[in-house]
Amino acid sequence: MDVELTRTLRDLVRGRSVAALGTLHSGEPFVSMVPYALVGKEHDFLIHVSALAPHTRDMLAHPRVSLLVTAPDGGASGDVPPQALPRASVQGDALQLPPAAADYAAAKAVYLARFAESAQTFELADFSLFIIRALSVRFVAGYGKAFSLSPEAYTQALDSD
Amino acid sequence: MDVELTRTLRDLVRGRSVAALGTLHSGEPFVSMVPYALVGKEHDFLIHVSALAPHTRDMLAHPRVSLLVTAPDGGASGDVPPQALPRASVQGDALQLPPAAADYAAAKAVYLARFAESAQTFELADFSLFIIRALSVRFVAGYGKAFSLSPEAYTQALDSD
Repeated sequence: MDVELTRTLRDLVRGRSVAALGTLHSGEPFVSMVPYALVGKEHDFLIHVSALAPHTRDMLAHPRVSLLVTAPDGGASGDVPPQALPRASVQGDALQLPPAAADYAAAKAVYLARFAESAQTFELADFSLFIIRALSVRFVAGYGKAFSLSPEAYTQALDSD
Repeated sequence: MDVELTRTLRDLVRGRSVAALGTLHSGEPFVSMVPYALVGKEHDFLIHVSALAPHTRDMLAHPRVSLLVTAPDGGASGDVPPQALPRASVQGDALQLPPAAADYAAAKAVYLARFAESAQTFELADFSLFIIRALSVRFVAGYGKAFSLSPEAYTQALDSD
């Protein structure tokens, strides 16, 4: 990918705050919405979810998930046909981060820096943090511009200037 | 659901033009973006996809899919925290609609009425239409407002005034 495409990917994943989370639900795909922050040197996805939600039970039973981040349509980018919207599908394993974990406090701080209004959900016993590190990435920058990225190439793209 | 929630669901699904499509990919969830139109009395999802894309091969191998439609974040609705964005997860079976099918021409017309810029992709041999009818729906209207809808209740909601 050239510099422009790399920046498109970086701005997409770093700039958005919600993703579509695909989990395996009774053997079938199930997609739900999750707000996310990015945490750590690998820019792992960090999500905070309720045990009452199907996706949380799904992740505990089967950690392999898919996250889709899509550029906003309409509004300022309303001149871009939906088919040409930049988007990234990230495959990874969702790992629950228990409050006793060494990096829990840092992760919580990162999450609340992005979603201050979520402070109260950290008081609820059924909510927990999950971290998802990219194992493979498919980035579609627009018409006919699809790329498969290794975790290393993905991290480099998100680190780019 | 009350009248206000029913209208929120109707406006969400009828008003958006892209969904996150969850397919089963080598036994794992995979989420990609698809533009969609709604077609027929049941407001089936209608998508136009390339055989070169992973999701198309996935749907042919395993028709059960999940579609997530999310209200736009940021912009005009930037005052709504991401956690409170209305969204609907629709489970259904993706059925390919061959050009020889009786309702192909009508479906194509519906799609192009929504996405005029896609006319050229109908000339490409690797693109095809798929129809996805809701088998079950999970609608999250906001904090703590989650509903499971039957296909009949979902169709009624989309038909509501």
